[in-house]
Amino acid sequence: MAHVLSGRAETPTQSRILTYVRDEGPLSRMDLASRLNVSRTTVAAEVGRLVELGLAEDGGPAASRGGRRSTLVDLDAGLRFVGIELGATSMRVAMTDGRLGVLARAAAPEADIRRGPESVLGEAIALVRKLLADHGVERPAGIGIGVPGPVDFQSGVPVSPPIMPGWDGYPVRDALSREFGTPVLLDNDVNVMALGEQHNGVARSASDFLFVKIGTGIGCGIVVQRHLYRGADGCAGDIGHIRLEQDGPLCACGNQGCLEAFFGGAALARDATTAARSGRSGVLAQLLEQRGALTAADVGSAIGQGDAVALQLARDGGRRVGSVLANLVSFFNPDLIVIGGGVAGLGHSLLAEIRSVIYRQSLPLATGNMPVVLSELGGDAGVIGAARLISDAVYAAG
Amino acid sequence: MAHVLSGRAETPTQSRILTYVRDEGPLSRMDLASRLNVSRTTVAAEVGRLVELGLAEDGGPAASRGGRRSTLVDLDAGLRFVGIELGATSMRVAMTDGRLGVLARAAAPEADIRRGPESVLGEAIALVRKLLADHGVERPAGIGIGVPGPVDFQSGVPVSPPIMPGWDGYPVRDALSREFGTPVLLDNDVNVMALGEQHNGVARSASDFLFVKIGTGIGCGIVVQRHLYRGADGCAGDIGHIRLEQDGPLCACGNQGCLEAFFGGAALARDATTAARSGRSGVLAQLLEQRGALTAADVGSAIGQGDAVALQLARDGGRRVGSVLANLVSFFNPDLIVIGGGVAGLGHSLLAEIRSVIYRQSLPLATGNMPVVLSELGGDAGVIGAARLISDAVYAAG
Repeated sequence: MAHVLSGRAETPTQSRILTYVRDEGPLSRMDLASRLNVSRTTVAAEVGRLVELGLAEDGGPAASRGGRRSTLVDLDAGLRFVGIELGATSMRVAMTDGRLGVLARAAAPEADIRRGPESVLGEAIALVRKLLADHGVERPAGIGIGVPGPVDFQSGVPVSPPIMPGWDGYPVRDALSREFGTPVLLDNDVNVMALGEQHNGVARSASDFLFVKIGTGIGCGIVVQRHLYRGADGCAGDIGHIRLEQDGPLCACGNQGCLEAFFGGAALARDATTAARSGRSGVLAQLLEQRGALTAADVGSAIGQGDAVALQLARDGGRRVGSVLANLVSFFNPDLIVIGGGVAGLGHSLLAEIRSVIYRQSLPLATGNMPVVLSELGGDAGVIGAARLISDAVYAAG
Repeated sequence: MAHVLSGRAETPTQSRILTYVRDEGPLSRMDLASRLNVSRTTVAAEVGRLVELGLAEDGGPAASRGGRRSTLVDLDAGLRFVGIELGATSMRVAMTDGRLGVLARAAAPEADIRRGPESVLGEAIALVRKLLADHGVERPAGIGIGVPGPVDFQSGVPVSPPIMPGWDGYPVRDALSREFGTPVLLDNDVNVMALGEQHNGVARSASDFLFVKIGTGIGCGIVVQRHLYRGADGCAGDIGHIRLEQDGPLCACGNQGCLEAFFGGAALARDATTAARSGRSGVLAQLLEQRGALTAADVGSAIGQGDAVALQLARDGGRRVGSVLANLVSFFNPDLIVIGGGVAGLGHSLLAEIRSVIYRQSLPLATGNMPVVLSELGGDAGVIGAARLISDAVYAAG
């Protein structure tokens, strides 16, 4: 990163101390010395420097193991990170402590990404400012942000994002960094969601896993040996535009028959509206009349009311997602697949269909130990993952 | 590895010296000191130890740059690696120097993997013994071997390989290691072919690339940031069993409609034979009469004679491979795709079709800078890659 990171770890040993304590909680100096294979004097010196940097603090006496008493090392109690997740039609922000526990949240459920960067980032900045002010935080140690489109991670800008008009090349990272005077990292929304599930969700012990987001769009975060894999141009995981049929429905990307055009949130709303208007589903027709427009969530509540047409929509979508994922399982041989995003709210009828197709179409060797599960963090996955992204940079040796 | 590696690098610095010299040729001590950011005294000491270990030697005076004369460091001229590639119906072995330049080759073009491990490995051992004896080599520094099926890399055994009856769980690595008294590593054939192209072929400067082998079977080696990616169970890249159609031809794996069942070498021979017998292709009919059975190579020579039916077989196959790869490009965003294996001998008519489908079906962002090319090393890719695999282990710090 080009930024000057004030209060950033300076040595690999400091970095490893911070990461251990972030991921496992306060640890005794003795424990750290043995894990890092360095002397207690070295640990004391490095922790001393971390305290000066405002990153660590004394965590009180460790439980005695009979020998000499050791002192716990904890992250500085005042350390704060901010995670921002911009969705296609909503926005969430969260403030975390140094271990990425969420202390406070805010959301703008109606924020439309198509309003362009100045308006949308302006709203995000106002949300973050209020969150910080409400909790007396002057400056967070860093901010992570996820957006629903391809990103050039090195330069911190969106690159030709199909559903984000006006954002191509906009300096999101640098604009936020200037605004808050703190390091910022920008990534794709599915990448930060994958990081969130890895940090504190269902993928904690996974090594090579996929996080599949089914929201307005469909995308996939890829983790290889516990690190995000972004691909040669930063657009790895763009599975929403895998072509299922030559003559399928028109997609936002300009092609026809993409997975997303069959079963993204917009496609699902379209199919539900058609079913409501054609009289095939009384439940959906009633919901349409009440709300004026249908969303993926309405399909979920229709399923809850036992509507067969809504259930079939979920199953058809699940079958299509499953058949794409079955191929990716043969290719990537992951140890876990996590399904998240708004449409994942359809829940177990969707999941059951996805699973059944994957298990049927992939080789037994690749699926023998591979769970397919719903996101555990739900709406928090993105903001926790965004905080995790920037904490990795702040805790990394400079 | 459980083996004792005699003559193996002992420190990270030694390991880096060996790798630099392997990949770039003899380097001066001065150059090495500056690349490794250590003193010339350290380089001298580490090189001294490498000479004792039989891994490095004095490479004569470096070209003067006006200052103090420096001495070149080279790999020991007597260092030998062996690469073995077992195919479904053929076998190749090569002996290389320390930089993995091929010094001698041998092949058994009719070796059928289905004869089982004892017979096939016996033949491979005899080939290697003869190669070593012919060149007065007593013991190679290591042997790498690739086989046409999934492998548990950690334990060095094939795992449920569909086209290798009798090999499941057979201790290939340990049997060879005992036989030759030298370290051995076992991997999948496409993985070693990918390593070969990376070491000395068309993928030298690629970071995240795919090596697609179209031979008797179809498989894919995956390289992530210049390292092989093997997947959670070691079966990543198994794209031959991606399902294209529910009711397609029966595959060796027991399913129907797999890519391999449409266009592996066996499928191509089947389709060519049908075309010959039905009278649709006079050229193929003539070849069938001459040889008694058709192979992928015969389809290639029919194309060379302008046979439209053979050309259409190549195009149909290319279209199917291309459509699978287009999806993988969206998912993996590689910087290069290399096409190799026996069927790749169909050459440019096949390549043109694969390219055209990939470029048409993938997003421009992912394909803008992504070449799709034929293997440069051809039949040598596997044996060079197998030698590279074991050299990485021998040159790695113990």
